[in-house]
Amino acid sequence: MTERYLEDFTVGQTFRSGRLRVDAEQITTFAAAFDPQPFHLDEAAARDTIFRGLAASGWHTAAVTMRLLVESDLTPAGGIVGTGVEACRWPRPVRPGDELRVESEVLEVRPSQSRPDQGLIKVRTTLNQHGEAVLVLIDNLVVRRRVKQVQ
Amino acid sequence: MTERYLEDFTVGQTFRSGRLRVDAEQITTFAAAFDPQPFHLDEAAARDTIFRGLAASGWHTAAVTMRLLVESDLTPAGGIVGTGVEACRWPRPVRPGDELRVESEVLEVRPSQSRPDQGLIKVRTTLNQHGEAVLVLIDNLVVRRRVKQVQ
Repeated sequence: MTERYLEDFTVGQTFRSGRLRVDAEQITTFAAAFDPQPFHLDEAAARDTIFRGLAASGWHTAAVTMRLLVESDLTPAGGIVGTGVEACRWPRPVRPGDELRVESEVLEVRPSQSRPDQGLIKVRTTLNQHGEAVLVLIDNLVVRRRVKQVQ
Repeated sequence: MTERYLEDFTVGQTFRSGRLRVDAEQITTFAAAFDPQPFHLDEAAARDTIFRGLAASGWHTAAVTMRLLVESDLTPAGGIVGTGVEACRWPRPVRPGDELRVESEVLEVRPSQSRPDQGLIKVRTTLNQHGEAVLVLIDNLVVRRRVKQVQ
């Protein structure tokens, strides 16, 4: 695995993951723990709701996005550590059986003003099912800089 | 439980939850599934990282926020359904043993332009540990309007 430092990132680079399948049991297990609402817990109860059938919690979808991002070829040195999300949208619900993958594009690269050993990259990550976006996340990640050796 | 419709929400209203305790096993179980990085998986491995000790994944923190929001007295008719997040920040990490609760403030209330039976509320939700924010989320929720009876 290549560890990437701030100097290795440039605007427009894209990174990809493999696929992860989400099934009904994963959807209902996550929902029981974190988002216990009928449209995330039970297929029959979900039919009469805004989702018209069982759908993953948006926070489950976000968590799956993180899993795929960790396994993608983004691989910043020091790990994937976000300082904050600027936007997160869910254009379509995730359904049982969906196979998901992420693609991330670097939007900005900037050194830290206060910390000479680190910087930030702004990344747009899209979670796709059959080429259609189910989640679009724009967030800022802390990335290490290569520390120069003292002469 | 009072089901609140769009007409029941006003700017400045606040809603609160009870408390939820997060322990080390919950932190590492969530991380193994969704955010398998050393600082979320193992206390010893976490010491040499940016977090200087075991810390919950930010997505675990967000999921706990959702759980508390569902159990809070916000209770919109039709459930808590977000269309998108405008901001999500993690000012401090969540540590094993932290006891968390949420407070949500209504920032905007507006009817839908295209759907006469629904509207949106913009809400700022703060997840607190001992009165200190560990997550601040600004998101938009779909809320039903009271449908007028045909005369």
